[in-house]
Amino acid sequence: MAAERPKILIALRQALFDLLFAPTQQARLRGLGDVTMPAQAGDLSEAQLTALVGGHDIVITSWGSPTFSAAVLAEADRLKLIAHSAGSIKGLLPPPVFVSGRRVTHVAYSMSIPVAETTLALILLCLRRFHKIDRAFQDGGWAAARGLPPGGELAGNRVGVIGAGYTGRAVIRRLLALEAQVWLCDPYVSDESAAALGARKAPLETLMRECPIVTLQAPATTETYRMIGAEQLSWLRDGAIFINTARAHLIDEAALLAELQTGRISAALDVFDQEPLPDDSPFRGLDNLIMTPHIAAVTQQAYKRQGAITVDEVASFLSEGKLRYEVTRDMLDTMA
Amino acid sequence: MAAERPKILIALRQALFDLLFAPTQQARLRGLGDVTMPAQAGDLSEAQLTALVGGHDIVITSWGSPTFSAAVLAEADRLKLIAHSAGSIKGLLPPPVFVSGRRVTHVAYSMSIPVAETTLALILLCLRRFHKIDRAFQDGGWAAARGLPPGGELAGNRVGVIGAGYTGRAVIRRLLALEAQVWLCDPYVSDESAAALGARKAPLETLMRECPIVTLQAPATTETYRMIGAEQLSWLRDGAIFINTARAHLIDEAALLAELQTGRISAALDVFDQEPLPDDSPFRGLDNLIMTPHIAAVTQQAYKRQGAITVDEVASFLSEGKLRYEVTRDMLDTMA
Repeated sequence: MAAERPKILIALRQALFDLLFAPTQQARLRGLGDVTMPAQAGDLSEAQLTALVGGHDIVITSWGSPTFSAAVLAEADRLKLIAHSAGSIKGLLPPPVFVSGRRVTHVAYSMSIPVAETTLALILLCLRRFHKIDRAFQDGGWAAARGLPPGGELAGNRVGVIGAGYTGRAVIRRLLALEAQVWLCDPYVSDESAAALGARKAPLETLMRECPIVTLQAPATTETYRMIGAEQLSWLRDGAIFINTARAHLIDEAALLAELQTGRISAALDVFDQEPLPDDSPFRGLDNLIMTPHIAAVTQQAYKRQGAITVDEVASFLSEGKLRYEVTRDMLDTMA
Repeated sequence: MAAERPKILIALRQALFDLLFAPTQQARLRGLGDVTMPAQAGDLSEAQLTALVGGHDIVITSWGSPTFSAAVLAEADRLKLIAHSAGSIKGLLPPPVFVSGRRVTHVAYSMSIPVAETTLALILLCLRRFHKIDRAFQDGGWAAARGLPPGGELAGNRVGVIGAGYTGRAVIRRLLALEAQVWLCDPYVSDESAAALGARKAPLETLMRECPIVTLQAPATTETYRMIGAEQLSWLRDGAIFINTARAHLIDEAALLAELQTGRISAALDVFDQEPLPDDSPFRGLDNLIMTPHIAAVTQQAYKRQGAITVDEVASFLSEGKLRYEVTRDMLDTMA
C-alpha cells in the first residue's frame, strides 16, 4: 500500500475542471496521485460515475456532478474522500455516502467571501442609493442627484442576519467591523455561540420587527422552505431593507413582490424562483428593488479559489488525514 | 467665578444650528451655560462675530462661520473653547487662535464614519459593478446582466490609502475587516504607527504602482495641492480603481479626465473643482466613472451626531477640562 499512489477521479466535465482548477492546481493534483479525467462532453452521468468509481480513493465533484446513489456507492469499493469543489451538497451526497472510513469536504467557505461582499455592498446600496445618485447625476445633473433624500449609515444600525453558516458568519464579521449591531436568528446556534460571534440571538419575529436591515443567509433545507412569507414580511418596519443573496427557496416570492409593490420596504435580490427571471417579471421596474442575476458568488477570484481549496483538502487528507472544511453526517439536516 | 455660568455663543445661523443640534442637544447646551443665539438671516459676518464674541467663554462654529481674524480675537477677552461642529477648520481658525488658555475641538471623527462607508461602497461598486448589473437587468434582462464580466473581490486585494486622518483610519479599519491588504502613504505616520494601524507604509509612487485600488483620504493643505497629476495617474496599473471622497484640491482634474477617457482605469468621484459640476462637464457620460455630488458625509445620522459630539465636547471641557477630539497648533500644517 505504501508505494501505491492514490487514485483520483475527476467527476466533472473538462471545461468546468479548467474553470475551477488553475494549471498549477491541476499539476499539484497530479503530483498527489494518479488522476483519471473521463472524456465526456456534458456533465458526467450517474451511469458513467458508477462505471468509473471502482478502484478510486478520491472523487472530485462540483456543479453538475451526478448523485452518489446506491448504485454508485455499490461500486465505490475503496472511496475514502469526496472533495466537492462547490458549495451545496444536497442531492449530490445522500446520507448513505457517510459511512465509516469515507469523508467529505466542500468549499462553501470559499463562496462565502464573495457572497458576504455582495451582501455588504447591497446593504450599503440600499442605505445610500449610490446607484440612483450616480444615475440621477449622469442623467439629470448635480441638483437632481443632490435632491435625493440623505441615506442611512450602517454604523450604529441594527442588522438581522438569518442563518450563521459560512456565509452568515462572513457577513457578521464584516457588519461588526463596520460598527453595526448584529442580531442573529439560527436555531442551531446557541446564545453563547451567537455571543462569541459578536451577535445577539433573537427569534425570527423579534429580529424582523426590531432590525431595520434583514439579510437572509440560511441554507435551502426542508425546514427553511418559504420561511419568509406574507406574515413574516409584515413584521418588517416601514422603510426596512431586506436582502436575499442566499436562496429563492427561503421566501414566498409572491408575498415579497406584493410587499415591494406597496413601497413600504426596499430590497435587493440575487436569487429568484425562476432563473433566468422572465423578461416580463413584475419584479422588473420596481424603484425600491435592486436586482442581480444570481452572481453573488461570481468573481474573478472565486472559481480558481474553489479549485485551490479543493486541492489543499486533498493534500491535507493524504498527508495527515485532516480536512479543514469537513462535512459530516450530522451536519446534513441543517445544510444545503 | 464658581457661581457664574459659562457664556456660550452660537456662531452659526439658526437653520444650520437646528439641522446639527437636535432639541435634546440644544437643551443640554442651555443646561451647560448661558447661550447666545444671534438673530441673523444668513451666515454670521466677521463684523457680527467681532461685536458678539466679547464676554463669551465658548464659541460654537460650523460651516459658514466667519474667520477668527485678528479683529475677532482682539475682542475675545475670555474665549477658552472654540467647538467647531464640522470638519475642516482651515480658513476658520488661523494660527493666532491657538494661544495658551484657549482650546479647539472639531467633529472630523463624526464625518469619518459616513465618508468611510461611502468609500467602501464605491470600492465595492467599482469592483463588482452592481449598479451596472442592476441597470442591465432592469433595462435588458437576465442575459444582458449575466453577460457582464465577473467582478473582483476586496478580500485578498491590495488597497492603497493616501492619508491617515480620522477618515483614512476609518477606511483602513473597514478594509482590514474585509480581508484586504492595506498600504498607506502618509508622510506624518511612521512605519511603526502604520503597522499599528494594520497597514504597510509605502511611498506614493510605490503605492500607486502596486495597489490595484487607490483611495484618497488626505486633507486639503498646501502640501497636498494637486498631489495627483498626470504622472502619478500614469503609475496606476491597467484596470486600477481610483477613489476620491476627500477633496478635489488633491487632484489635477484635467489629468484624471484624460486618463479616464482612455478607459485604462476606473474611478469614483464625490468631489469636483467646480461644484455644482456643470451640466456639460466631460466627466458626465463616462462608462468607467461613478459620480456622486459631494454627499460622502451626508447621511440622516451625520448632521445630528456632529451636534451631539460638539455638546459632548463642551460638557467634557467644562466638567474636566478634557477634549476627545482636540485640535492643537502643531496639527494645523497637516490638517484641513
